[in-house]
Amino acid sequence: MAVDKKIVVFVGGVGGAKLALGLSHVVAPENLTLIVNTGDDFWHLGLKICPDLDTVMYTLSDVVNSEFGWGVNGDSIITLDTLTQHFQFEPWFRLGDKDMATHLLRTHLIREGHTLTEITQFLTKQIGVKPTMLPMCDEEVPTSIVTKDQGTLGFQEYFVRHRWQPVIESIEYTNHKQAKISDSVKSAVELADMILIAPSNPWLSIAPILSISDLSDLIQSRDIPRVLVTPVIGGAAVKGPTAKIMGELGLSVTAESVARFYGEVINGFVNDIENRDLAFDHVKTTKFNTFMKDLDDKIRLSESILSWIEGWK
Amino acid sequence: MAVDKKIVVFVGGVGGAKLALGLSHVVAPENLTLIVNTGDDFWHLGLKICPDLDTVMYTLSDVVNSEFGWGVNGDSIITLDTLTQHFQFEPWFRLGDKDMATHLLRTHLIREGHTLTEITQFLTKQIGVKPTMLPMCDEEVPTSIVTKDQGTLGFQEYFVRHRWQPVIESIEYTNHKQAKISDSVKSAVELADMILIAPSNPWLSIAPILSISDLSDLIQSRDIPRVLVTPVIGGAAVKGPTAKIMGELGLSVTAESVARFYGEVINGFVNDIENRDLAFDHVKTTKFNTFMKDLDDKIRLSESILSWIEGWK
Repeated sequence: MAVDKKIVVFVGGVGGAKLALGLSHVVAPENLTLIVNTGDDFWHLGLKICPDLDTVMYTLSDVVNSEFGWGVNGDSIITLDTLTQHFQFEPWFRLGDKDMATHLLRTHLIREGHTLTEITQFLTKQIGVKPTMLPMCDEEVPTSIVTKDQGTLGFQEYFVRHRWQPVIESIEYTNHKQAKISDSVKSAVELADMILIAPSNPWLSIAPILSISDLSDLIQSRDIPRVLVTPVIGGAAVKGPTAKIMGELGLSVTAESVARFYGEVINGFVNDIENRDLAFDHVKTTKFNTFMKDLDDKIRLSESILSWIEGWK
Repeated sequence: MAVDKKIVVFVGGVGGAKLALGLSHVVAPENLTLIVNTGDDFWHLGLKICPDLDTVMYTLSDVVNSEFGWGVNGDSIITLDTLTQHFQFEPWFRLGDKDMATHLLRTHLIREGHTLTEITQFLTKQIGVKPTMLPMCDEEVPTSIVTKDQGTLGFQEYFVRHRWQPVIESIEYTNHKQAKISDSVKSAVELADMILIAPSNPWLSIAPILSISDLSDLIQSRDIPRVLVTPVIGGAAVKGPTAKIMGELGLSVTAESVARFYGEVINGFVNDIENRDLAFDHVKTTKFNTFMKDLDDKIRLSESILSWIEGWK
């Protein structure tokens, strides 16, 4: 299948990276731009950590730990174990030795004054990612989780340290209105022939992207297919806290709740065959098996989605 | 042998660390303070690296790579190899994965606003170093090497990148007059019953310490034994560039040249049995076998030096 349309994909971590990988096998690299959530970036041990950028980069360069879906394959953890052994210092966020190379180099380049966009383009080119990967913005826009039982937590504190167990009261996107859409993101969205939203967590991975400045308005102003791939399958999320969060936010764990959350941002919806139909006047829908367990699944789903969109009148 | 005198030792890297280790077996920890050169500290890959502090710390906590005399025993180099493999980025200064733990934690604590003195005391306590270890000051006072053939080089560029092969025209200690003697260093020198200068490179390791503010005057004002252990044995240095540098600075490679360099700072000199006698009116001298190849040598030399000084009238 040859796709010569320019495709922009909004993507978070593990789930979204799967679709991004599938698309990278189907779409020419010069036509594929991945705009990645950085709302869960944080500083740790003096290192700038960008978990979603890394997950997508590792996935698309085929060095990812395929069991976890994140981190580098065959990694060890000598540095952090030594931190504990020599200094009785036990970080709650574990970083592998191979993974560390990314954090060291990125942090070094940030301290030298480069933007996250520049650094991401450099790192992805060096490691062999062919499509364009862009952070959603250059500023730091940390997502905070206001919990019912543990106060306000930084994203990774919530997600990793507390294994997303605290009950969410609300989610706060900070600094997002001061942050600017980068020229690269703006240009990619303006030139796109279609926009996809990967099956990432809507509240934790995609909403931070849409919250940046007037990106959401820019997207809605584009009269092109703007298609969401459901992150909910059969009343559950494939992985991670999506279903749990929906419950805590008082939403039913259905594709319909998710589609409603995106509102006018989307005009197309790829539902899963296990989900109930949804019918919104302004949203075209279809159903595929959206569960991706191996590379073939990812490619098949990518092809199905693009074929379906090609068929739009 | 019980030594209940307060001993302050000025020390650089590998050579000096050997004597420091010997002393730590002979002197009660509460009576031993090691003041360590930081003139060769530098920033690398966004990390604050303190080579001499690390060499002394690793040596005294028994985790040092005993073959090299620096670095951590049994270390690997996965992170830096991955930096090359993933990003084609090959740093000229190699850092092991275990060693990295020290740099990460120190850099993190510096970014958090702690002083190098505080950090050094924390790290050494955690890793199990019993004597007090102090950096010579808290400010950055980088040593530069003005070479005849390669322009001006940062210390580690000269020492590691170019393997101390460029010919030295002069050595520049920067920021040393603005730097302050820390309260800890001042107090240690003021309360010392004797001062030792370890057999470290006089120009690269000890002179940077003595150059700080008015430390040299403070030392000379103390009417106590102030004893240098020769870094030159039989017309050569045990290791490293001392002899080469002396030649380039137009000095004969003799203990006498070294003693003369220290001038009034010292009033005692431990010469090596292979060296010619030197006779300076103001300097008491003795001769021992100062070559330390194993722990017994280090302990024996430490005991001999302290016994000799105890015998001063």
